[in-house]
Amino acid sequence: MVTLPSPVAPRIALHPDRLLPADPGTRSIARELYDAVRTAPIISPHGHVPARWLAEDAPFPDPTALLITPDHYLTRLLHAQGVPLTDLGVGVADPSPEQSRAAFRLLCRFWPAFRGTPVKLWLEQVLVEVIGTDLMPTEDTADLVYDAIAARVAEPDFRPRALYQRFGIEVLATTDDPCDDLRHHTALAADPSWPGRVLPTFRPDRYLEAGRPEWPRLVDRLGEVAGVDTGTLAGWVTAMELRRAYFAAHGAVSSDHGHRDARMAPLDPAAGERLYAAARAGRATPDEAVQLRRGLLFEMARMASEDGLVMTLHPGVCRDHHRDSRERLGTDLGADIPVTTEFTTALHPVLNAFGTHPRFQLVVFTVDETAFSRELAPLAGFYPSLYVGAPWWFLDAPDAMERYRAAVTETAGFGRTSGFVDDTRAYLSIPARHDTSRRADAAYLARLVADHRLTLDEAHQIAQDLVTTTPRKAFRL
Amino acid sequence: MVTLPSPVAPRIALHPDRLLPADPGTRSIARELYDAVRTAPIISPHGHVPARWLAEDAPFPDPTALLITPDHYLTRLLHAQGVPLTDLGVGVADPSPEQSRAAFRLLCRFWPAFRGTPVKLWLEQVLVEVIGTDLMPTEDTADLVYDAIAARVAEPDFRPRALYQRFGIEVLATTDDPCDDLRHHTALAADPSWPGRVLPTFRPDRYLEAGRPEWPRLVDRLGEVAGVDTGTLAGWVTAMELRRAYFAAHGAVSSDHGHRDARMAPLDPAAGERLYAAARAGRATPDEAVQLRRGLLFEMARMASEDGLVMTLHPGVCRDHHRDSRERLGTDLGADIPVTTEFTTALHPVLNAFGTHPRFQLVVFTVDETAFSRELAPLAGFYPSLYVGAPWWFLDAPDAMERYRAAVTETAGFGRTSGFVDDTRAYLSIPARHDTSRRADAAYLARLVADHRLTLDEAHQIAQDLVTTTPRKAFRL
Amino acid sequence: MVTLPSPVAPRIALHPDRLLPADPGTRSIARELYDAVRTAPIISPHGHVPARWLAEDAPFPDPTALLITPDHYLTRLLHAQGVPLTDLGVGVADPSPEQSRAAFRLLCRFWPAFRGTPVKLWLEQVLVEVIGTDLMPTEDTADLVYDAIAARVAEPDFRPRALYQRFGIEVLATTDDPCDDLRHHTALAADPSWPGRVLPTFRPDRYLEAGRPEWPRLVDRLGEVAGVDTGTLAGWVTAMELRRAYFAAHGAVSSDHGHRDARMAPLDPAAGERLYAAARAGRATPDEAVQLRRGLLFEMARMASEDGLVMTLHPGVCRDHHRDSRERLGTDLGADIPVTTEFTTALHPVLNAFGTHPRFQLVVFTVDETAFSRELAPLAGFYPSLYVGAPWWFLDAPDAMERYRAAVTETAGFGRTSGFVDDTRAYLSIPARHDTSRRADAAYLARLVADHRLTLDEAHQIAQDLVTTTPRKAFRL
Repeated sequence: MVTLPSPVAPRIALHPDRLLPADPGTRSIARELYDAVRTAPIISPHGHVPARWLAEDAPFPDPTALLITPDHYLTRLLHAQGVPLTDLGVGVADPSPEQSRAAFRLLCRFWPAFRGTPVKLWLEQVLVEVIGTDLMPTEDTADLVYDAIAARVAEPDFRPRALYQRFGIEVLATTDDPCDDLRHHTALAADPSWPGRVLPTFRPDRYLEAGRPEWPRLVDRLGEVAGVDTGTLAGWVTAMELRRAYFAAHGAVSSDHGHRDARMAPLDPAAGERLYAAARAGRATPDEAVQLRRGLLFEMARMASEDGLVMTLHPGVCRDHHRDSRERLGTDLGADIPVTTEFTTALHPVLNAFGTHPRFQLVVFTVDETAFSRELAPLAGFYPSLYVGAPWWFLDAPDAMERYRAAVTETAGFGRTSGFVDDTRAYLSIPARHDTSRRADAAYLARLVADHRLTLDEAHQIAQDLVTTTPRKAFRL
Repeated sequence: MVTLPSPVAPRIALHPDRLLPADPGTRSIARELYDAVRTAPIISPHGHVPARWLAEDAPFPDPTALLITPDHYLTRLLHAQGVPLTDLGVGVADPSPEQSRAAFRLLCRFWPAFRGTPVKLWLEQVLVEVIGTDLMPTEDTADLVYDAIAARVAEPDFRPRALYQRFGIEVLATTDDPCDDLRHHTALAADPSWPGRVLPTFRPDRYLEAGRPEWPRLVDRLGEVAGVDTGTLAGWVTAMELRRAYFAAHGAVSSDHGHRDARMAPLDPAAGERLYAAARAGRATPDEAVQLRRGLLFEMARMASEDGLVMTLHPGVCRDHHRDSRERLGTDLGADIPVTTEFTTALHPVLNAFGTHPRFQLVVFTVDETAFSRELAPLAGFYPSLYVGAPWWFLDAPDAMERYRAAVTETAGFGRTSGFVDDTRAYLSIPARHDTSRRADAAYLARLVADHRLTLDEAHQIAQDLVTTTPRKAFRL
Repeated sequence: MVTLPSPVAPRIALHPDRLLPADPGTRSIARELYDAVRTAPIISPHGHVPARWLAEDAPFPDPTALLITPDHYLTRLLHAQGVPLTDLGVGVADPSPEQSRAAFRLLCRFWPAFRGTPVKLWLEQVLVEVIGTDLMPTEDTADLVYDAIAARVAEPDFRPRALYQRFGIEVLATTDDPCDDLRHHTALAADPSWPGRVLPTFRPDRYLEAGRPEWPRLVDRLGEVAGVDTGTLAGWVTAMELRRAYFAAHGAVSSDHGHRDARMAPLDPAAGERLYAAARAGRATPDEAVQLRRGLLFEMARMASEDGLVMTLHPGVCRDHHRDSRERLGTDLGADIPVTTEFTTALHPVLNAFGTHPRFQLVVFTVDETAFSRELAPLAGFYPSLYVGAPWWFLDAPDAMERYRAAVTETAGFGRTSGFVDDTRAYLSIPARHDTSRRADAAYLARLVADHRLTLDEAHQIAQDLVTTTPRKAFRL
């Protein structure tokens, strides 16, 4: 523990019962349920940690580059306090040590802005349990906390592989471009000294968005990598099939898709070729580009029914809402905003085609939580292929998790859900995120035991399933 | 009680405090409120039990045909586990005893999938309180439970009429086709030995859906039954008026309507006749068919303002989402999925026409729960004719009921709601469903007493009203 | 205290712990948090009390004209019980004393209909704490309560200014027409004996609604008052700028806008002039009128970025849903019904233009609570200019407030919210409304302390901020 000499410096107090219900009887049930799964291995079937980190096992960079700059959960709310994103290192090519330290001070100064958010829970747990300091981030403690992290990062047991084992990760999925050669996954698989399991995930979004200016170039590149002429829709399809097979051969179990809406609908082959040709020539209207994207996504579903890669959807987000930030600083900086998202009609064609297909499996996430009780739980409560994804992104927080279980369970039970998905690039926070989910599920289950909807035994089985069989089934692990 | 010899077989434990809040102080208030209404007679103003059952009073069939095959709450979630619907008897003309027993085994095997759903609460309560076995359904106990039910079904006091009295039903509404001759209702009314009250409900959906291929044939049949030429819209209107009068003369107090959306809007008479003629000739476009349906539904509202039948709406469901199941096996098998549903604009014309009409009364149900606080409670909080229907279908569950009360009460109070509606064809589960609702309302009221929003006396009055005056007023009983 | 001689007359019991959580441990935390802010001065940055009341300081009228007729929270739910609005004085030019008393009897008779609504909480608190009677309104006590209020209203310490000080109001914003000369605000500012702070708010809705028949006349009047020819769009813009400056010079800190949707989008200047000219000539289509309104609202945002008046939006309500009541009796009588409201796309243009502008500040309210977690909290969690408005209108109630905090906090924290806004013309109820909000926030914070998401110290700071720095920052007070 790195500690301040002053006895009055505020400390982080990680209460062992945090996030468990206040009612004493319910809390004791929740504590028992949580304790039984607290140390279960972490299954992380969807996330954004680069495979390179584990393949190369290099030390992490400075605290700001490690914890702040790449984490849009932090940058967005700091930006909302009036902090320029560049002051946090976003879009800054090579920040100086002074810039990094200054950015960290900004985080500490505005730390009270995170009260009530899960970011506060996660980062404080990281500081105590991963870094080993219980100093509360404040303007006064900023440099001490920064130094504590920097010192810890330099230690040999703080390399990515050591942490992987210390965190108790059983499997970790990355998210990868279809043209990626997966060299890091290959290296890991070939390394006899590496006991972990790191799987690629096929994420082809950009190759389906025919309305974007870079699309023709990307599709050319896809053709080169696959060794197929992508000048036709048929060629695009073949190239994708080949790349999916490549990913599957490297351990992938799922593809991931995040478009503005959830719709996928088949294209008549001839009309599809015409649309595709128009888009290649830059002559597709915005509506045609959307129609083509929905057709290409339907093709992805069709491939999934054949190659058995689980299809996961993360729709309904307006990406890069603030154009100026996008143009100056790039994407994924915290300006993505959800929109109303519809599933019953959008998924009609694909579920009619493959909804009862034994090879097809679809995990649907949403940031429009109104869909949970209205559409997703009813769909998952009928179609054996469809699973309701765990609370995602803005909903990855204790109250939202409770609402998710309350909205889904009464219609679809527990077994039609996906298990927790950390969806993060913040590697250090993975245990804290899974821990939060386990606490939230224990809290929900305890409530059902306390009002006698479940027996304690039933709740124990469910709590175990939710961290073992449930994600393994939803993601075919 | 039929019990297993083995002392380790799992037992159903129906805790007397189930569904009541965990906090001890709140629970004791809830228990007192619940106890005061626990045995109040059951008013069931909307459901799907066939009148024939009570008129003929024949023994129930085998356990699977009684409990599984016709209950889409069960078949849907079993289908989601990968069980073919035909294995549950759906669409099977005359299942063999072996098939029925095998289907029951599937239910028992997958019983854990129902954990957290109200189906588990209802069926376990049925097993203990109606059947008289406390054996938990499992693969091991399946045959014993099956035999226990089969034995019970054969007993004379297990006939529909005996159960009606044992269940303490005061009034039971059925759901009937406008062309139905209501012979079973007539027989019951004429039977001096029958002390119950079974009312028909006028459900004309199919006669309004001009976009369906069977519509012209149905409308012909309507004309025959009513003795009116339905070749014109005016004829259709007259025929409906006559059939409504026939239903009213047989005790009906309401008509029920379940279309894709809630809109009803008047048709200009001449344009209406043209639309109707086009639809009769099979020449109406899909949009025109929708426009005609909304016009016909508006006519229903106009009739309601004259004949005083309460109009109930159950909109917003995509029926038969899975076409293949529909084509092979029929409807009502668990593949109906809710959609976003709008009311403020949709009901504008009808509320402007009849919203303050003293004879008009409209009870609006929804499976899009976002409408409760946004639209339905505000509407019911102004229009004396409009009542917010109880949580329906997917929302007929403890957590959803709590959300319903929390969403509606602060804007519309308790008196602008409909009282509980079981909406079921699962006759045996009627007491369990009403019991769940009474517990949920007691839990909600207890919370308001515990935080001093209501006095205990006020809560007692409300709890009594909710099972007596509230449904009687909403349904004009 | 005015009391009935009969010991059995029902009494209002205002429990000191009302609205605090039932769990004893959580309640004691909530009580401590609430006690620390209970008597903090009231900041009321948005409401509908006329400045004239405070400028003239005349006695209030009779109890019905004071409490019932102008309060659509009361008239709407009484209308839903079947009470004609005219019986409550709505649209009645000069009600007789008998009519006023009869209206008050109706309120008392139907008082049970308000159980579970915040109206009951507010009015009972007003009766006990402002009027000084603990008689529960019933048919039997109606005249006694009426007389108690009438007697109290006649007392000198019951004048508006005396109550302002007794209520502990620090600042009170009114809502005013752009053409208002603000004479009452001027008089108050010039009165050395008046220690309060009453600010106008610029509310130009009617001048943007080019689709309404009165629009050309209103725009003419705007031109006269501003001394600018409003025959062109450029003239309209100049006139608005001048009136905003006039308001700012008289202390205004915000403008307020309540249209059907939240969209604002710039007009091309030439096209804007053409649209404006068409609208002036009464030739604009409904779609063009909407387009023009959105363009004019965008201009308001542009002005806000220059003059620094905070822009507040209250969109998403279908005003005067019941046309017959509107035509006979006017507006604001309880027939306004919310509609689904979208923000992510609607606010895209304005946030791209001014979202990071240091002078621009936007507070967004909604009665479509689905937007809180999906759109408003994400937007406020990125854009430093955007604040999530407090629960408004139908959502201004304990359970809805809890849902609001639960939906917003995990994504945006506490500091990106507006602080409580009473939005009322019911002057006597202002303390009760703020008290309800303080209790609700204490309850929410106590829950976060009880499950160790916040320390007690953190919760105390937040509770203080929410009634001091938070509204001051959001409204630039």
